[in-house]
Amino acid sequence: MSYLIDGLQYSNWSEEIFRQLRAGGVDAVHVTLVYHENFRETVANIERWNRWFERWPDLIFQGFTAADIAHARATGRTAIFFGSQNPSCIEDDIGLVEVLHRLGLRFMQLTYNNQSLLATGCYEAEDTGLTRMGREVVAEMNRIGMVVDMSHSGERSTLAALDHSTRPIAITHANPALWHPARRNKSDAVIGALAQTGGMLGFSLYPHHLKDGSACSLAEFCSMIARTAERFGTHFLGIGTDLCQNQPDSVVEWMRTGRWTKAVDYGEGSKDAPGFPAMPAWFRDNRDFGTIADGLRATGFSGTEVAAIMGGNWARFFAASFGAAGQGAEAQGKRAAE
Amino acid sequence: MSYLIDGLQYSNWSEEIFRQLRAGGVDAVHVTLVYHENFRETVANIERWNRWFERWPDLIFQGFTAADIAHARATGRTAIFFGSQNPSCIEDDIGLVEVLHRLGLRFMQLTYNNQSLLATGCYEAEDTGLTRMGREVVAEMNRIGMVVDMSHSGERSTLAALDHSTRPIAITHANPALWHPARRNKSDAVIGALAQTGGMLGFSLYPHHLKDGSACSLAEFCSMIARTAERFGTHFLGIGTDLCQNQPDSVVEWMRTGRWTKAVDYGEGSKDAPGFPAMPAWFRDNRDFGTIADGLRATGFSGTEVAAIMGGNWARFFAASFGAAGQGAEAQGKRAAE
Repeated sequence: MSYLIDGLQYSNWSEEIFRQLRAGGVDAVHVTLVYHENFRETVANIERWNRWFERWPDLIFQGFTAADIAHARATGRTAIFFGSQNPSCIEDDIGLVEVLHRLGLRFMQLTYNNQSLLATGCYEAEDTGLTRMGREVVAEMNRIGMVVDMSHSGERSTLAALDHSTRPIAITHANPALWHPARRNKSDAVIGALAQTGGMLGFSLYPHHLKDGSACSLAEFCSMIARTAERFGTHFLGIGTDLCQNQPDSVVEWMRTGRWTKAVDYGEGSKDAPGFPAMPAWFRDNRDFGTIADGLRATGFSGTEVAAIMGGNWARFFAASFGAAGQGAEAQGKRAAE
Repeated sequence: MSYLIDGLQYSNWSEEIFRQLRAGGVDAVHVTLVYHENFRETVANIERWNRWFERWPDLIFQGFTAADIAHARATGRTAIFFGSQNPSCIEDDIGLVEVLHRLGLRFMQLTYNNQSLLATGCYEAEDTGLTRMGREVVAEMNRIGMVVDMSHSGERSTLAALDHSTRPIAITHANPALWHPARRNKSDAVIGALAQTGGMLGFSLYPHHLKDGSACSLAEFCSMIARTAERFGTHFLGIGTDLCQNQPDSVVEWMRTGRWTKAVDYGEGSKDAPGFPAMPAWFRDNRDFGTIADGLRATGFSGTEVAAIMGGNWARFFAASFGAAGQGAEAQGKRAAE
């Protein structure tokens, strides 16, 4: 049984996309619920998802435990796992970690580009690591079973989270900086530490994270994965497409500027190319995961390795991560009563 | 196996009271989370409970399904089920029904004394029944598995809820008005409809609901239950003590006036006796449920009937009520993965 799991998407969700998830055989996907939303706005986003779950029960349902991956496969649906790209959703209140976990939040980034109450984002000039509250919140996330995601954090903060967290953490969507030195891509120090601690790296298909951007070839992308596997192993590698399908450019503007500035911030874009970049031609949407798997095989990965990268590693990580500290992986895999 | 379940308490919770719950052998209790709180304040109250669950895991845990009653018994603890005495917690947002159910809210009163967005409270001069939103919210509560509680509602609204709800409803804490004509006590029309529809009536020990108030005797109280059982049957009867142990009088003031008036409202009290009335001498706290059971036996109830009234009926009602519509009682009884 090999699962297909995507480590991050933030699409403009619709029946069309849910049907594409099914057509592509995606068993589970970690979806972004929050960019800059506060707690109440986050709950409003959950309510929106609840309407989709109620409207398309044959296509999707909310995932809470790793057992929901198998349940999705068994019932021909896609399990949707919530995550936040920004700790804005917990505001200044550590108690909201447990509340949001109960509502299904399974990943939370400690920062989104900027300094947060918890840590430093990758666009700040100075990175001071985890704050006092950051250390407390990481411990609470560890206790409860919410994954620390450092995809948009600075180097020092990321290494500090790796060190401080008692449970494996994730970079759900980024690539090696050595391959493409974007500010969002990760150093070998970070990738090596993830490999050694049971963490996960989800390779991103967002063009700003790719060498040659939208023109990056499938062979080049898969070769980058192969080189990462050669250096650090295959056991911690997955896919985190960062697919933002059908989003208008106003959404990438919201991602970048939220409410923190009145000015324009182009983030990874530029004045000449401020909008969403076009996805690589070989990955248009959820129906194209087979193309990536083919590319990995062509690069020399074995069938077992391809299965691990395309979902097996995420499935194991979900099982180890979503339950309370001290629970066995088996207990954590139990499905919650719906 | 006979369970001991209390249909409503709102005490000033402390380790002392949690230990009294254990000393009294209380398997499950429906606790009030909300009097006038909005959604965010309700979540803050849940956070407070989460701290208590974390601090005293040997005494209490949060109940989500009826199976948690058996789990409480098996592990020597008390399962705490949340409820709201006021729909203020869902504000004007029907989507919050599902969100709060996910957080464990299992009961919600459509009104607390006054007109709400959903229905009319028992202290209003005119009762117009369910509002437009009220009908929608009752349907959503039915779909999700949240119990409609009409303890503080007006007569017409209560009968309308009984009629409109497709699942049994509850009066978690009130007595027959025929016995003691308090505005909060219920007519035979309401009690009869509860009996016929699989609903529940929790007999209250709050002195303002008792004949002779704090001086009401155990025999008088149990005789009232016996007369109710003779008329309507035993199958829908339980206890809902309305115990407000160790609460300062400022809390009963908050219950009565919330933020809806700047004036003083004495509710069931009076200018001469504005505070909490003293509980009857034979029911000081959770250690005295055995006294009630003894009183019921002395009144002539059989052992089976006493067990049903002291918790068996609530247990069956919980099993039928807390899961999504259309789930069998067995599926609903499954414990959620913690």
